[in-house]
Amino acid sequence: MAGFTGGTSIILRLEMMKERTNFGQIATTIGDAGGDVVAIDVNRSTKTVTVRDITVKVSDQNQTDAIVKALNELDGVKVINVSDQTFLLHLGGKIETTAKIPIKNRDDLSRVYTPGVANVCMAIHEDPSKAFSLTIKRNTVAVVSDGTAVLGLGDIGPEAAMPVMEGKAMLFKQFAGVDAFPICLNTQDPEEIISIVKAISPAFGGINLEDISSPRCFEIENRLIEELDIPVFHDDQHGTAVVLLAGMLNAVKVAGKKLEDCKVIVCGIGAAGIACTKILLAAGVKNVIGVDRQGALVRGESYPYESWQWYAENTNPNEEKGRLSDVIEGADIFVGLSGPGVLKVEDVKKMAVDPIVFAMANPTPEISPEEAEPYVRVMATGRSDYPNQINNVLCFPGLFRGLLDCRATRVNEQMKLAAAKAIASVVSEEELNELYIIPSVFNKQVVKKVREAVIAAAYETGVARRKSADIRSDEAAQSADGAGML
Amino acid sequence: MAGFTGGTSIILRLEMMKERTNFGQIATTIGDAGGDVVAIDVNRSTKTVTVRDITVKVSDQNQTDAIVKALNELDGVKVINVSDQTFLLHLGGKIETTAKIPIKNRDDLSRVYTPGVANVCMAIHEDPSKAFSLTIKRNTVAVVSDGTAVLGLGDIGPEAAMPVMEGKAMLFKQFAGVDAFPICLNTQDPEEIISIVKAISPAFGGINLEDISSPRCFEIENRLIEELDIPVFHDDQHGTAVVLLAGMLNAVKVAGKKLEDCKVIVCGIGAAGIACTKILLAAGVKNVIGVDRQGALVRGESYPYESWQWYAENTNPNEEKGRLSDVIEGADIFVGLSGPGVLKVEDVKKMAVDPIVFAMANPTPEISPEEAEPYVRVMATGRSDYPNQINNVLCFPGLFRGLLDCRATRVNEQMKLAAAKAIASVVSEEELNELYIIPSVFNKQVVKKVREAVIAAAYETGVARRKSADIRSDEAAQSADGAGML
Repeated sequence: MAGFTGGTSIILRLEMMKERTNFGQIATTIGDAGGDVVAIDVNRSTKTVTVRDITVKVSDQNQTDAIVKALNELDGVKVINVSDQTFLLHLGGKIETTAKIPIKNRDDLSRVYTPGVANVCMAIHEDPSKAFSLTIKRNTVAVVSDGTAVLGLGDIGPEAAMPVMEGKAMLFKQFAGVDAFPICLNTQDPEEIISIVKAISPAFGGINLEDISSPRCFEIENRLIEELDIPVFHDDQHGTAVVLLAGMLNAVKVAGKKLEDCKVIVCGIGAAGIACTKILLAAGVKNVIGVDRQGALVRGESYPYESWQWYAENTNPNEEKGRLSDVIEGADIFVGLSGPGVLKVEDVKKMAVDPIVFAMANPTPEISPEEAEPYVRVMATGRSDYPNQINNVLCFPGLFRGLLDCRATRVNEQMKLAAAKAIASVVSEEELNELYIIPSVFNKQVVKKVREAVIAAAYETGVARRKSADIRSDEAAQSADGAGML
Repeated sequence: MAGFTGGTSIILRLEMMKERTNFGQIATTIGDAGGDVVAIDVNRSTKTVTVRDITVKVSDQNQTDAIVKALNELDGVKVINVSDQTFLLHLGGKIETTAKIPIKNRDDLSRVYTPGVANVCMAIHEDPSKAFSLTIKRNTVAVVSDGTAVLGLGDIGPEAAMPVMEGKAMLFKQFAGVDAFPICLNTQDPEEIISIVKAISPAFGGINLEDISSPRCFEIENRLIEELDIPVFHDDQHGTAVVLLAGMLNAVKVAGKKLEDCKVIVCGIGAAGIACTKILLAAGVKNVIGVDRQGALVRGESYPYESWQWYAENTNPNEEKGRLSDVIEGADIFVGLSGPGVLKVEDVKKMAVDPIVFAMANPTPEISPEEAEPYVRVMATGRSDYPNQINNVLCFPGLFRGLLDCRATRVNEQMKLAAAKAIASVVSEEELNELYIIPSVFNKQVVKKVREAVIAAAYETGVARRKSADIRSDEAAQSADGAGML
């Protein structure tokens, strides 16, 4: 269980039959099982029954289990609920909607609401582009999911997806000052999802699609990109791809390779695998070979998915066939987006000199860093407890900050490449080494550089709606009175 | 224009041709027109042109107009934009999404996001009712509009409706601690609106429909009430009705009448008029007569709308016919939800002794308080600049606070009646008089009493999902550690 580093607090809710037990027995039982009672609250009490919330310090999940078991064996005691710190900080959700200014009196009320607000409404009605200056649209992103591919948990539904989307909204705000709101949809029909996102779009300056299963995610994203005039970005695909490329740009430097000349194996041809392949191709890689359960994708074969058909026709120029253990021969780079243990030590040994392995399956990588270490030059995973974590949090906050600031109409390949290069650039030549190819998510330079790179690419490719002079004056004024933003 | 009480600041954005003008001329011109230059910012500057933002204190809109006119008459000067304080405080929108706790380190990150969040997701997946404790659902309301009937402005579209919905979200938070998020829909199709609201509902504990035009609003609301398990409330109908009844309960006390025995004329049989009629009938009034442009609605007649057909069959027991000036004869109460000037002084003179007039057309009432004053006993309007303002803000914050706190599945008539009585009760017997029948929106007792009344009615009518013991322990604990909320 997560969050158990060096002890934590749990809250046990107990129902006690008053005649059959007393609190002394309970405290002794908790102590004997290794717990430390910190606080007691009476939740409710009748003549015969009392319900108490007992806060207990424990060292790990095993201790929690032992305490719960021991308490349930006591006569007249029932453990109703156990909350650890992760659960406790989710109580009531992790985000809130707050007013930017207080309404102190009738005068304030008449400005933010009727009758004064009517003038603002009419100004937008007459010129809809003013929605960007006079509403939350300028700074607000919808985080849209249908709960079908949440983390590694699969199709757990919209309610259960909310904690992830709320967490994402927290990251958007903390790292980039972006207001994000979770929209978790109780439908899995692509047409319905497309029409809903289109319908709710007036309030938003961008759409972050999240945890939508493949292949539905392709159509949903592509259609929305074409039919909306605000950027639409499926983070599971493109966020992963951008951060992968960022790490790869630095990894090849460390390994003394040229990315264009590398033979790259991409293992796991789902939504993320395809996006990673596309960004590698866009970055100049010529020889990418995709491998899934039945082996390498080769042109001329017939595949069950349209996306695989595209893949086979646009990769693997030498038409290499066989399983992973065959095509890995002589590869410079392994990119894993598949499952635990898929890459064997023997496979790594077959790779070119100074091999690069990005084993990004979550939570268990395609090969453990311990196993791979003797044979690889650079290793990265999706995990925070090893060096070189490929983490989407490095991309989406700065990317959307840039998209919103220049009022981009879409995200294009150039912007994604620019974001990847910006992330890579945060690690200086002097700092760069095998164990440090990608910056920490807490490095403040990341958002700043990604934002600047995305804005520059947006102007170069003609998808920025805002006059660049306005952005400059904005930055200069630090929005002292906001007049520069109108 | 709103907000011009006692002088205000405006910001003028000027484009100046450098060779043809200088700032001295501009400052003199503003001064001569009565303005006072407070601040100057250079927005951008080229060799020939400079753009400046000039903050000017002015006394009213006429002065602003005079300054703009005088500046535009100068050679080489162009006023690009004028922003008053109302516009300035709308810059970038009025609400934001904020995290409840900061993410300080990797440990925090692993709890609010992957991998720790997965345990929370799975807990909700296994028991969806836990969405109420572990996500924002417990405290969050969607403010849904299609922008078809915004204030008195009509069908101005979803972008232009946003400032109203954002304002509403501010009021929800400030007055009742409710997190509200604006969902402005780019569709007017009732079926689509119904399916969208159903699809986005997992994140929300309640739905506030707002500014949706009649008759579509009836079907949308009724269907959503039946098909969702969270409360759905069209504020334009029922919020108005609740606050009307609150004022009326006190108005009849002042006038020494019994509400059940009153003859009531409701003028303007739109969505709000019908809702007001229904709550008056629920409160025991027997003789309500609805009047629209073509006269009193009478059973047996054939009407173009289903809602009017219902109305004719369920009101006007004495089958009175004719225009407003006919049926007003002997009426105790006039309720206006129509248009300016519809009620004449001659009509008021025909009413029963001590007549009560609620002229709620916005912004101009059915009869002005000045005209009516000599002939009425109690007068109320929708305006903040007269006594007895019938303002929806008195209802929706406390109502939804109560609905969320008991996890109600719906709003029923009993809860609306209870809310009305609670609002009325804030004005004590001692305070009650002709000019004070309804409390101020800033009176803190209002939300508290409405909340308590709504919760009590929810338990009485069996629509509360939460154990009442949990609410009590919640209140007792003041959510010290939140354990009582799980």
